[in-house]
Amino acid sequence: MFGTPAITAALSGQAWLQAMLDVESALARAQARAGVIPHRAAEEITRHCRAENFDTASIGDRAASSATPVIALVRDLTALVDETAAPHVHRGATSQDIVDTAAMLVAHRSVELVLADLRAAAEQCAGLAERHRGTLVVARSLLQQALPTTFGRKCAGWLVALTEASDGLERVWRQRLAVQLGGPAGTLASLGDDGQRVLGLLAEELGLGEPTVPWHTDRNRIGELAGALGTVAGTLGKIALDVKLHAQTESGELAEGQSGGSSAMPHKRNPVRAVLITAATQRVPALVGGLLAAMPQEHERAAGAWQAEWEPLGELLRLVGAAASAARELLAGLRVDPDRMRSNLDLTGGLLMAESAASVLTGALGRSRAQDLVAEVCRRVVDNGSTLRAELLADSAVREVLSESDILAATEPADYLGSAGAFVDRALAVHARTTGGNEQ
Amino acid sequence: MFGTPAITAALSGQAWLQAMLDVESALARAQARAGVIPHRAAEEITRHCRAENFDTASIGDRAASSATPVIALVRDLTALVDETAAPHVHRGATSQDIVDTAAMLVAHRSVELVLADLRAAAEQCAGLAERHRGTLVVARSLLQQALPTTFGRKCAGWLVALTEASDGLERVWRQRLAVQLGGPAGTLASLGDDGQRVLGLLAEELGLGEPTVPWHTDRNRIGELAGALGTVAGTLGKIALDVKLHAQTESGELAEGQSGGSSAMPHKRNPVRAVLITAATQRVPALVGGLLAAMPQEHERAAGAWQAEWEPLGELLRLVGAAASAARELLAGLRVDPDRMRSNLDLTGGLLMAESAASVLTGALGRSRAQDLVAEVCRRVVDNGSTLRAELLADSAVREVLSESDILAATEPADYLGSAGAFVDRALAVHARTTGGNEQ
Amino acid sequence: MFGTPAITAALSGQAWLQAMLDVESALARAQARAGVIPHRAAEEITRHCRAENFDTASIGDRAASSATPVIALVRDLTALVDETAAPHVHRGATSQDIVDTAAMLVAHRSVELVLADLRAAAEQCAGLAERHRGTLVVARSLLQQALPTTFGRKCAGWLVALTEASDGLERVWRQRLAVQLGGPAGTLASLGDDGQRVLGLLAEELGLGEPTVPWHTDRNRIGELAGALGTVAGTLGKIALDVKLHAQTESGELAEGQSGGSSAMPHKRNPVRAVLITAATQRVPALVGGLLAAMPQEHERAAGAWQAEWEPLGELLRLVGAAASAARELLAGLRVDPDRMRSNLDLTGGLLMAESAASVLTGALGRSRAQDLVAEVCRRVVDNGSTLRAELLADSAVREVLSESDILAATEPADYLGSAGAFVDRALAVHARTTGGNEQ
Amino acid sequence: MFGTPAITAALSGQAWLQAMLDVESALARAQARAGVIPHRAAEEITRHCRAENFDTASIGDRAASSATPVIALVRDLTALVDETAAPHVHRGATSQDIVDTAAMLVAHRSVELVLADLRAAAEQCAGLAERHRGTLVVARSLLQQALPTTFGRKCAGWLVALTEASDGLERVWRQRLAVQLGGPAGTLASLGDDGQRVLGLLAEELGLGEPTVPWHTDRNRIGELAGALGTVAGTLGKIALDVKLHAQTESGELAEGQSGGSSAMPHKRNPVRAVLITAATQRVPALVGGLLAAMPQEHERAAGAWQAEWEPLGELLRLVGAAASAARELLAGLRVDPDRMRSNLDLTGGLLMAESAASVLTGALGRSRAQDLVAEVCRRVVDNGSTLRAELLADSAVREVLSESDILAATEPADYLGSAGAFVDRALAVHARTTGGNEQ
Repeated sequence: MFGTPAITAALSGQAWLQAMLDVESALARAQARAGVIPHRAAEEITRHCRAENFDTASIGDRAASSATPVIALVRDLTALVDETAAPHVHRGATSQDIVDTAAMLVAHRSVELVLADLRAAAEQCAGLAERHRGTLVVARSLLQQALPTTFGRKCAGWLVALTEASDGLERVWRQRLAVQLGGPAGTLASLGDDGQRVLGLLAEELGLGEPTVPWHTDRNRIGELAGALGTVAGTLGKIALDVKLHAQTESGELAEGQSGGSSAMPHKRNPVRAVLITAATQRVPALVGGLLAAMPQEHERAAGAWQAEWEPLGELLRLVGAAASAARELLAGLRVDPDRMRSNLDLTGGLLMAESAASVLTGALGRSRAQDLVAEVCRRVVDNGSTLRAELLADSAVREVLSESDILAATEPADYLGSAGAFVDRALAVHARTTGGNEQ
Repeated sequence: MFGTPAITAALSGQAWLQAMLDVESALARAQARAGVIPHRAAEEITRHCRAENFDTASIGDRAASSATPVIALVRDLTALVDETAAPHVHRGATSQDIVDTAAMLVAHRSVELVLADLRAAAEQCAGLAERHRGTLVVARSLLQQALPTTFGRKCAGWLVALTEASDGLERVWRQRLAVQLGGPAGTLASLGDDGQRVLGLLAEELGLGEPTVPWHTDRNRIGELAGALGTVAGTLGKIALDVKLHAQTESGELAEGQSGGSSAMPHKRNPVRAVLITAATQRVPALVGGLLAAMPQEHERAAGAWQAEWEPLGELLRLVGAAASAARELLAGLRVDPDRMRSNLDLTGGLLMAESAASVLTGALGRSRAQDLVAEVCRRVVDNGSTLRAELLADSAVREVLSESDILAATEPADYLGSAGAFVDRALAVHARTTGGNEQ
Repeated sequence: MFGTPAITAALSGQAWLQAMLDVESALARAQARAGVIPHRAAEEITRHCRAENFDTASIGDRAASSATPVIALVRDLTALVDETAAPHVHRGATSQDIVDTAAMLVAHRSVELVLADLRAAAEQCAGLAERHRGTLVVARSLLQQALPTTFGRKCAGWLVALTEASDGLERVWRQRLAVQLGGPAGTLASLGDDGQRVLGLLAEELGLGEPTVPWHTDRNRIGELAGALGTVAGTLGKIALDVKLHAQTESGELAEGQSGGSSAMPHKRNPVRAVLITAATQRVPALVGGLLAAMPQEHERAAGAWQAEWEPLGELLRLVGAAASAARELLAGLRVDPDRMRSNLDLTGGLLMAESAASVLTGALGRSRAQDLVAEVCRRVVDNGSTLRAELLADSAVREVLSESDILAATEPADYLGSAGAFVDRALAVHARTTGGNEQ
Repeated sequence: MFGTPAITAALSGQAWLQAMLDVESALARAQARAGVIPHRAAEEITRHCRAENFDTASIGDRAASSATPVIALVRDLTALVDETAAPHVHRGATSQDIVDTAAMLVAHRSVELVLADLRAAAEQCAGLAERHRGTLVVARSLLQQALPTTFGRKCAGWLVALTEASDGLERVWRQRLAVQLGGPAGTLASLGDDGQRVLGLLAEELGLGEPTVPWHTDRNRIGELAGALGTVAGTLGKIALDVKLHAQTESGELAEGQSGGSSAMPHKRNPVRAVLITAATQRVPALVGGLLAAMPQEHERAAGAWQAEWEPLGELLRLVGAAASAARELLAGLRVDPDRMRSNLDLTGGLLMAESAASVLTGALGRSRAQDLVAEVCRRVVDNGSTLRAELLADSAVREVLSESDILAATEPADYLGSAGAFVDRALAVHARTTGGNEQ
């Protein structure tokens, strides 16, 4: 249920198998370039390293007994290649080298999809921020109506959050995904003096980073990737939470494009994508915590913590991928109801504007007198079920210092927005700057 | 128990109070510079913003009822300043502006201490890597002896991990700690058109970043800080785990400088700092997960999740600070026992060198025959309780293709280290490059 | 901010110190009863085991170096008692025996407070369920209005959840809090053959359970306590979430007794207790996960994981204690607005009753025809902005099979409540049964 | 890799599908018994509710769009049954009723397997405790050798921990797994007055508990199940940790029956099951925390948190199931090396017995003098590389008060075991009592 076809495919058993084969073939080519094995052997190995040549289920079954799929994979690959290439399969590597590097490849390919969805979602936020730069909506604090703001300002906040979270993920994607190659002890002992060169060439072949030293029990890369996915998930979860709250029947300010209907309950407009994003992202913090908890690994190779990383890393990528894709769709199809936003803003009879009124009165009466006066007027609004504007107009003390047009201005939400518009412009300017290169 | 005096002070109630006062005074100065309030008022406010002028306990008591310490603080501050300055205290800000910016200040000050300890710990690792570049030690995989490596190679791994984790934390420290200022709705409504300028000047006054928009319910900054602290903790936990394992009575390869003694058990050399690092860092993943889980916050201001951040953020800083400081001490005083390392390497009668022997025999006999022969010889080592070297020397099939000196070389751990030395050099070179600026 | 005075006191440094002293004195008395030490020594020791005789701060300072407060405590206690009693202080115990047993005492005392608050909160739920057995309110699914229910039914759900969570906690409190006594190796070696008897007598002295064997590295008791607190927190968090949602300005169905006001925003009725409960309970899952993660502890005594338990256990108790107390207050003062509940139920023009209408029509028209007809009528309700009742009355196909009174009944929320009342009664009956003993 | 065939089958997509069908058919039979639908319809529905009649993949595909598999399942089931039964399929239920009850069935079936493995593992511990009641082994504290104990005592600790954790899980299994039936609003509105009876009969049909009220957003049952699985995992993780440490090459006291071998490293005896148990159980705390975090669910039906439960609950059952099964195998095949245990006990030259010696000397010399004297003797043991026994025999001050046989006794580990044997007997007695019913 969680995971688009694209992200599901990028994380499938088949995709993992292909990634491991990509590592084995790249290793052979790197060793050929380093003069460690014959070029012909590397070609022969590369030729056979296609997932469709292998029986995924059988490899999976055999993986259980040795706690790694690599032994079975290497056996099957060795059997496939001709006998002159056979001794050159998997030279100098340990199982973890293959699994870790394959994980980096799988992460690289998955995160690329995630980033595309995040950038598209940000683009939608930018459009919404621009279109609704002046659309009044109530700002809510502790789930209580607080002051007026604009829906554009809200979308600008989403935009900045999405952009900054995506930037963090992109940084890890660009800089921190590196090959693993160290052999059983992290010394590349069986490659003699050639280890370093093979390491560098392997990185080149796969388009991943070259680590300073093998990182079998240094799991910073995994921890950083998890952390970056975690902040992305938190950001997507925040947007989904806002949408669900705005979409409540009693609020009705937003709806999803194709809301989940129900024949039995025709009035319901279920925020299905927001629910899915919530369900997916809510699971992420525990997965991040789990991966961080697995960082302390024993000596040169871990006794359990490494093995505990595999599934959670895949799930993390899948869940964030599913959420990013759903967020993109949600934002693309979001239905905004400015009339409902406006009428909700009036629910309290203008009491939202009390701060504004007090601030205007402060000039004439001083802060303390102004606040007392406004508090008294507000009590009357509540008691009489009237509006702040009406009670201010009717109050003689107020009228001594404020004209009718002063009062109209002081109680007009559109006139009490401070820097809301400027903040929209700042967010759009940053967005234009970061995406400018791609678009022109 | 967890937390050095320095980090404890940086995170004390007093430190939080001072940070909040620093924000209030910087806000006043920023508004004076923007022409929003008189310069004289800003000076008067600044003059009183010293923690010793306030009653921390009383502010704490009053915080409980309003769920924020800021209301009491502002009241007390307003009472302290003269009456012309009073109306200019806390202008346009909401409580969260003060608490969030103060949190950024406290984080900035604490992380600075943490980074200093981490860099010093890395320096110690570099020294150990250099000194023990050639010190043989057994590499262990799944807690089983695997192959020879050097203790220098192990320390190079620690060094790289520490450096990369510290770099991640430093990046957040430099780039992502920013002021918060948005007023109740994130619009700075009561500052009219001056909001943006005050925001920029506030950042300048405090030496923190200026956000694109207020980030009341965009908690990326907290999430990123938590993530970076999480990877630091994982790295410190890994080093502590290694030290504890090396320090086991049965291994005896490492000991802490001032091991915790016990009069009742005089033989014990308790790895007390490693235990403390473990205890502190083990709690970190849950705290990071908790902070990420608090990221989805409602609308413009959260109804619980924000309030859930305060204590965990402080604990996270305290625990990582305590662990970093203990790691620095641990590494500075680490006692290395090369003799014990060497004798442990011989525990298996040289079986560790079976891979090396097989690899030497492969040239003459082919991979498969060589492996079978070595396996047979190894069985004899186990059955006879002898050594690999002795059994190889005694085996006629081996002697047909290998001379005595070949066998001595093939079973010499110091000759089967691959790129261990090169990896030490790479780690030291990166270290020299990153710290070069500071040291010359 | 989190923690009532009572729970704060029960978890203070002073309370921990007293608990450790209670263990030391109970140990002396148990050993006197077992004939291991003189009765006079036990009396002398007991006489001095009062926290006010000790310098908490100094013990805390000295704790840091040995990673346990017990060594300093025993030293100070030994110095306090006369010289004939001195050799009998802390006989045969290891530090962990004292800390673990003290933790059990502190937990016992804290949980007792928590249970009292939980039972009182349940009592409030029972009162609300009874009073509002017939108060109509809309049931919401995915935050969308779904069908009518009663507020009493909702409170019955809270009541059952609170009762079952409290029962789980009470079970742990009664059955699983046990003394710890094993000496350094879990053998009570220095007590010779008297170990077992002393263990049993110590349990008797303290009113805690007697374990089958010492449990230094068997942390089931901690894990179970954490789990039980975790489900309590989840339940409290659910109630707080519901209250916050009902209290939204746009819903207005509930308000807290003494809502947090705001002079600047007079319309706000902040759900401060619900926010506090959310903030406190949201942190609990990570703490529970952290304590479970600390369960695997090495050999006879742990090297870090045990030390990682102390603070989180205290925080867990404090946070759940704060939340339970706030929930009790929240429920005691909850203001219910039946009129607002009723008017919100009408927001959709009666579309909530479509299922009811379809079900009545099914008898006459068959399921499929009835559903199609209702769907068509509902579309007209939306298009015309009218009500389901009006459109049904106006529809000739409907009128062929349903009389006016049939239609009035089919669209009356109060007639479509199924077992709502019965469920209230069931919950109240279970509640009466479990609390009956206490009340009569 | 994680999960035995049995547990994998119990948690497969097929198993979930069958469980949902079991719920649909039991619902029909319950409604027939309550007179709500014809008996013939219930028979017809029951007849078709077999997973092999359905296309799992197609249901899965259609699940994605509505965020639940139940809609597609009900459609397919309705199409399968004859037309008189069709209107009686899924009467009065909401999707969550089916999914929740199916989850309870799946949990019930999986936990039954887990409990069988746990009880078998406990049986193995009992056997080990009995056989090794007198086998000396060193007790370790902070990973340092501390005092002598017996391997039987250690196994008794494992036994008690396993038994208590299993008891907790069994309690939840027996008492807390209940059916879910409430309809969309938790009122069973469309069943009129028959709701309660159908609920009770459904519980009867499925052999699950009957809840006091529907529990759609009361997730205590899930939280309790998660907590119980969490303590089981912690206990299994502790045993695995001990085995890994004992199996280290430098310790060599334990080995797994069929250790994972390595042709390249013939000396390695990889503790593969212990590693697997570690990897599986290490992930559990985060999953438990995640499920607890999902407990606060909105109103009558959740908007994301419920949907976040499904996969983690399945994973939790699978991981604990895999770990329990591996623990059973590990313990059944565990190879104990009493000679190696004994020789490790002598590694420190008898310094482990310093406490014993001091205690014997205390009688003659007083505590303080005895401790000083022993400390001095111990220093000589270390300096001379001799043994405690030899130095005591050679010390004139000691010889004044202790005879040779006194010294031999005071330094004999087998004579300083306190209640170790008694604790073994207590654990075995409790074990015999709890398993007695099954065995006779």
